[in-house]
Amino acid sequence: MSDGVKDVHAMAPEHGHLALQRVGVEGVRKPVLVQRPGRVVTLSASFSISVDLPPGRKGSDLSRNAELLADSVDWPDAEPVSSLESLCAAIAREELVRHPYAQRSEVRARAEYFLPRAVDGRRKSLEQYLLLAEGCGRRGEGKITVRRTVGAEAVGMTACPCAMETCRELLRAEYPLLGDPRLADLPVISHNQRNRTRLVLELGEDAEVEADAMIAAIEAAQSSPTYAILKRGDEAKVVLDAHRRPKFVEDVVRDLLGSLPNRFPGLPDDVVANAETVSEESIHKYNVEAAHATTFEELRRAANG
Amino acid sequence: MSDGVKDVHAMAPEHGHLALQRVGVEGVRKPVLVQRPGRVVTLSASFSISVDLPPGRKGSDLSRNAELLADSVDWPDAEPVSSLESLCAAIAREELVRHPYAQRSEVRARAEYFLPRAVDGRRKSLEQYLLLAEGCGRRGEGKITVRRTVGAEAVGMTACPCAMETCRELLRAEYPLLGDPRLADLPVISHNQRNRTRLVLELGEDAEVEADAMIAAIEAAQSSPTYAILKRGDEAKVVLDAHRRPKFVEDVVRDLLGSLPNRFPGLPDDVVANAETVSEESIHKYNVEAAHATTFEELRRAANG
Amino acid sequence: MSDGVKDVHAMAPEHGHLALQRVGVEGVRKPVLVQRPGRVVTLSASFSISVDLPPGRKGSDLSRNAELLADSVDWPDAEPVSSLESLCAAIAREELVRHPYAQRSEVRARAEYFLPRAVDGRRKSLEQYLLLAEGCGRRGEGKITVRRTVGAEAVGMTACPCAMETCRELLRAEYPLLGDPRLADLPVISHNQRNRTRLVLELGEDAEVEADAMIAAIEAAQSSPTYAILKRGDEAKVVLDAHRRPKFVEDVVRDLLGSLPNRFPGLPDDVVANAETVSEESIHKYNVEAAHATTFEELRRAANG
Amino acid sequence: MSDGVKDVHAMAPEHGHLALQRVGVEGVRKPVLVQRPGRVVTLSASFSISVDLPPGRKGSDLSRNAELLADSVDWPDAEPVSSLESLCAAIAREELVRHPYAQRSEVRARAEYFLPRAVDGRRKSLEQYLLLAEGCGRRGEGKITVRRTVGAEAVGMTACPCAMETCRELLRAEYPLLGDPRLADLPVISHNQRNRTRLVLELGEDAEVEADAMIAAIEAAQSSPTYAILKRGDEAKVVLDAHRRPKFVEDVVRDLLGSLPNRFPGLPDDVVANAETVSEESIHKYNVEAAHATTFEELRRAANG
Repeated sequence: MSDGVKDVHAMAPEHGHLALQRVGVEGVRKPVLVQRPGRVVTLSASFSISVDLPPGRKGSDLSRNAELLADSVDWPDAEPVSSLESLCAAIAREELVRHPYAQRSEVRARAEYFLPRAVDGRRKSLEQYLLLAEGCGRRGEGKITVRRTVGAEAVGMTACPCAMETCRELLRAEYPLLGDPRLADLPVISHNQRNRTRLVLELGEDAEVEADAMIAAIEAAQSSPTYAILKRGDEAKVVLDAHRRPKFVEDVVRDLLGSLPNRFPGLPDDVVANAETVSEESIHKYNVEAAHATTFEELRRAANG
Repeated sequence: MSDGVKDVHAMAPEHGHLALQRVGVEGVRKPVLVQRPGRVVTLSASFSISVDLPPGRKGSDLSRNAELLADSVDWPDAEPVSSLESLCAAIAREELVRHPYAQRSEVRARAEYFLPRAVDGRRKSLEQYLLLAEGCGRRGEGKITVRRTVGAEAVGMTACPCAMETCRELLRAEYPLLGDPRLADLPVISHNQRNRTRLVLELGEDAEVEADAMIAAIEAAQSSPTYAILKRGDEAKVVLDAHRRPKFVEDVVRDLLGSLPNRFPGLPDDVVANAETVSEESIHKYNVEAAHATTFEELRRAANG
Repeated sequence: MSDGVKDVHAMAPEHGHLALQRVGVEGVRKPVLVQRPGRVVTLSASFSISVDLPPGRKGSDLSRNAELLADSVDWPDAEPVSSLESLCAAIAREELVRHPYAQRSEVRARAEYFLPRAVDGRRKSLEQYLLLAEGCGRRGEGKITVRRTVGAEAVGMTACPCAMETCRELLRAEYPLLGDPRLADLPVISHNQRNRTRLVLELGEDAEVEADAMIAAIEAAQSSPTYAILKRGDEAKVVLDAHRRPKFVEDVVRDLLGSLPNRFPGLPDDVVANAETVSEESIHKYNVEAAHATTFEELRRAANG
Repeated sequence: MSDGVKDVHAMAPEHGHLALQRVGVEGVRKPVLVQRPGRVVTLSASFSISVDLPPGRKGSDLSRNAELLADSVDWPDAEPVSSLESLCAAIAREELVRHPYAQRSEVRARAEYFLPRAVDGRRKSLEQYLLLAEGCGRRGEGKITVRRTVGAEAVGMTACPCAMETCRELLRAEYPLLGDPRLADLPVISHNQRNRTRLVLELGEDAEVEADAMIAAIEAAQSSPTYAILKRGDEAKVVLDAHRRPKFVEDVVRDLLGSLPNRFPGLPDDVVANAETVSEESIHKYNVEAAHATTFEELRRAANG
């Protein structure tokens, strides 16, 4: 490029008085090598990377975002990263170096993830999950700080506790024997369905958390996990488990959030937990959902309350 | 336009020896007024419109496709059409008039559609469905012929017949009373889930069919239809109905195809029926599916076989 | 239903100390009749409807959400609504009546929308847009208040101002004649692409705004609107217009927000405007985006600044 | 499982006279290790696996599909496969062993894929592509035969040759200097956009092809490839390249198919090539597309014609 070319990005904008909160790239897909205990896994990840823009500057140097991401993950040179969120945090920090005019940076990633699962520890299959990660940089008082967020989503199963009771009533009218006390706790028919539940933890600058443990917490809060391989006996066992733990979406969110203080005792009080769940109702064409966000401090108080 | 501009489309292509089977537009969205018995409904439809291209011609005049569609449906001038497939057929015919170099035309449409439904005829809600339509034109022996295809898709529910029997066995071990003959036909727990089933009928030039009747046929072949509004008693009834009619995806396709000769006695033998069903399994993260295509002649032979 | 059936929703939850911010239904699709000046249009809309849930209650009566929506829009009884946002606001208010235990309600809708457009007022075609609407109810001090939000999204086109200048440089090296002053303002090649821009206005309780005017504001901020029908001369005109108004995503957001005080002089200072734009870059496989949210007060100050 | 449980799948179906062409699973996601020259890459792949079902049998043993896939790819035991299509072919063959009642099997996979690319060989970035593969098994005359299909999709860029000429005309009226012979071949403004092009080769039982070579063929047929990293000079070069090779969708398909005989001289005459291209037009809200399928024999004849 000759020096004579105008640097259009650095020019003053026409509507120059307006800063912009976010300018960046989205949907940049990259393979990312992640070091897991005892193995390196490759995640197909999607990234969005942005910074803010001060009022006096026409454009953000967007090619720096893609270049920085390539510097960070493109093989063959790339070292495995320790986690998706540490990668996002590192990029968020470096973004503020490469965009000296920016005060804030935001790096988000999502990636499919696989873990082995089995009913009763027998035939394991790889089950798919979703990982979410975020790094948010801030420039201030001469230094850059970066907050990290980690999320995970698991598809499992819910069985409806309400329909189970109304079905019991309906069946009892037809089968009086169901009123026998020996059948009092018999799980009866209900509607059950796919449930997608997401847990996102806003960790701050220092806290760390293991995504596998978050996925385990989510699966424990659903009526049952689901499995790629279910031989006939396993299938019945999963169905029975789910009907023995029928759950509203409300229950899934409360049970998940309620379990966090015990599962993550080391996380500080100011970590924010966001739980969201969606049940793809088998009896409706639409979904039902529940969501709540709160701090670990609040969760600990509720657990003791 | 000055006459001096090159008509690039009509030029000879560089790789001129190659005809192309399909050149067109896709994803053109339009509101379409359709005359239904006693009312006019507006469908938000998506169209793809294409013709073939002979070897000697560089480009197809694609603006004619969008223009023809606008002539056909853009209000305020538009008259309601009698059906989505008659609209596709009319456009497919006119395509061959406006593209004199083409031998074949293909017009496809899909649109969301709503019908009122109720459990027990009580509280009706509008349920959503999908309509599919196609018109395929052919130029030959001095005239244009157009074949029509009509399709519909409905989301309902399936309950698994296999898991029901293995669960019965599992429960019996724990609740011996379930072995009592009075409970022999008790519907027991199983996995149930959303099921999407599609029926597409290739009608030929003359046959006609009512989409509402196709949707009714699909819903009758699922374990149960599903409903937007289910007060508590209704919900139990839907769950019970579904567990009284447990179905594999195989059953859904066979029952749907098997019902067609009785439901559509007037359709000629050479009409082709395509049935496809997908169950979004509650116990797996993946779907199971079944599909079959055959003629009404074959279906009638099977029904009598 | 016999009275003996447990009202499972009203029971105390196991993790009873946790309130939930949001419990509801999502993805409920309905046709909605909307009264527009001189005509009634039918929108295929998708709704999510939720309320909060107090700590002592196990479940939200979700069937009331679907029932309320059906009461509001299901034909044949339904009157056309005045706007999607007034419908959302009315449902948000009624939600708090039907869920007496709830303090907050949230109703969101999105729908495809069509408006006639033409280059130079000649051949009009219906172009597709997206409408967004929201009603948020709050119960407090003995009364219910509802804030409304209106949004619109339009797909148009951006041409890159930076690539145009670097291409000019590159071409000048090869075609010295381009340096002639008579060609100083010649628009030269650049990359151009689809751009999706969304404007969302948080109106509060009383302010009103016309979606068509929001769509006009968006299209004016892009390099050019796009059209379904472009005869050959029109196509060149659209391309030329876009290259005469090259825009970064930063420009689109700034120009859109900067235009609002003049376009909507009647809106109060506390209305919040959110602008988001995404360019599906022709030279990359990923998108670039920009976003900013601010108040009309701020925008008016910036305009005078 | 006790032996007393009914094998529901093996039972006779109610509508027993109907065979089914396809029963299986879809959307099963798995990481797949693939051996590439000098390295092992991990693909996040999605599989569908199905067999046909004879008339006398109620259900297909669907758990065998997921189990077979797990046997083939689930780490830590899995060896890298030589290609996605060889994996599909191996599964298609084994499907007919594990489903002894089936005559045909079909295994399809799709996976995101990355290759390094650079403008002028300088700064390389990993670009994303799509791989498609298929294995179709047939049982006949005492043996199983498997045909393989390989596909690839690349996103690149097209610039419109027609709009370039009409824009030239429009500009000439305003800038007479453009009529100067020294500017006769100046590339002028046009609309350009993302183009997705897919090539699928039906190979039969023995032929083999390298996906990387198919991707190279696709990118050569577009106006230009696209890149994640484009420093300012590169960006101008890509735009200029694209405008020097303006292409209709018709040109992309013809150029791609026309290039195959030279690029794949070893492929037999009966290999079928399917080419499909979609341009996400910057001047329209809809896409334009072209497609053609033919044999290598036909392509060789056309090349010599």
